[in-house]
Amino acid sequence: MQTKAAPPIAFLQGRSTLALIEAYFELNHLKQLYRQGWLRVGLARERCESVAEHSFGVALLSLFLADSYFPEADASKVVRIALLHDLGEAYVGDITPHDKVSREEKLQREQQAVERILAKLPRGAEYLALWEEYEHGTSFEARLVRQVDRLEMGLQATIYEHQGAGDLSQFFASVHKALETPELKAVLAELEKLRPGA
Amino acid sequence: MQTKAAPPIAFLQGRSTLALIEAYFELNHLKQLYRQGWLRVGLARERCESVAEHSFGVALLSLFLADSYFPEADASKVVRIALLHDLGEAYVGDITPHDKVSREEKLQREQQAVERILAKLPRGAEYLALWEEYEHGTSFEARLVRQVDRLEMGLQATIYEHQGAGDLSQFFASVHKALETPELKAVLAELEKLRPGA
Repeated sequence: MQTKAAPPIAFLQGRSTLALIEAYFELNHLKQLYRQGWLRVGLARERCESVAEHSFGVALLSLFLADSYFPEADASKVVRIALLHDLGEAYVGDITPHDKVSREEKLQREQQAVERILAKLPRGAEYLALWEEYEHGTSFEARLVRQVDRLEMGLQATIYEHQGAGDLSQFFASVHKALETPELKAVLAELEKLRPGA
Repeated sequence: MQTKAAPPIAFLQGRSTLALIEAYFELNHLKQLYRQGWLRVGLARERCESVAEHSFGVALLSLFLADSYFPEADASKVVRIALLHDLGEAYVGDITPHDKVSREEKLQREQQAVERILAKLPRGAEYLALWEEYEHGTSFEARLVRQVDRLEMGLQATIYEHQGAGDLSQFFASVHKALETPELKAVLAELEKLRPGA
């Protein structure tokens, strides 16, 4: 797993502090953790986004999309799910399909990590329930964020292609597979027109 | 202004696309924009967070803090303000006190930038109103996020100090100045116990 630095939570070893500070030291590692898929296709570390940057993109894009196209969605829930969806990676790392970790194993590791981070917070059980909704796609809002997670990857891929990263079609294939709603498929169709050479 | 790359919005020059895609190409620049204050004190670019990473930290920390300590706050509003609060930097850059730009000039530039990004979105006027609340501190939620914006800087500074960045006391002075509520001051007091050598 390629990172900018080791997990900051190590600096707290053996010291007791507020639950909130501990949770911050855990989630801060998402700033250090590269999105491994981009490195695998040769993107330079200096250009490669972190999981925190991706989560920021997903959260803001989810808000804009929910408000623009899905008035029936609970936009506040959408944003919370987006902020929490990759939290388990603070301990587990960014496992990609190329790591040959089964879906069950990945889910189990991330569940343990998310519980470890959230259980200490007053509203941790609520956050954990939202994360589980996301993982299992058991609400409209959760399924929306799952799609936006991929759409954001497609948007970022388009920008990397313009910055000279080469053909990232394999990422677009993954976006296509994930999108279900006509509104998001229409956004993707417009996005693809913007790829270099399209 | 030090960045990882030029603003991605340039790739759209002369092409018409969806408002949502255009807004994404604008906000994506926050992933490229270093938080200039850290570079100024000698932090290496490879370690330096982006504005997007900071915003992610502020958003999640604001959610946890609002839910933990401020039940009277509208947590959904807090999170939206946190996600939007640095959006103007996509055009203006991360102006620090050392740039000798007056507070009025900075505010005016950022206001123009935020309007440019948000005006095209269906709920843009609402987002802009939240951003203005933040800038002028005209709601409890806005004042809370203004404080969390600094507290997150203090948390990040503590981690950078542990990673060997040297004495970052000047950043803590700025956090102290910004915090108003007893709850957040108590968090800061606990945080300072965790600084190297404390």
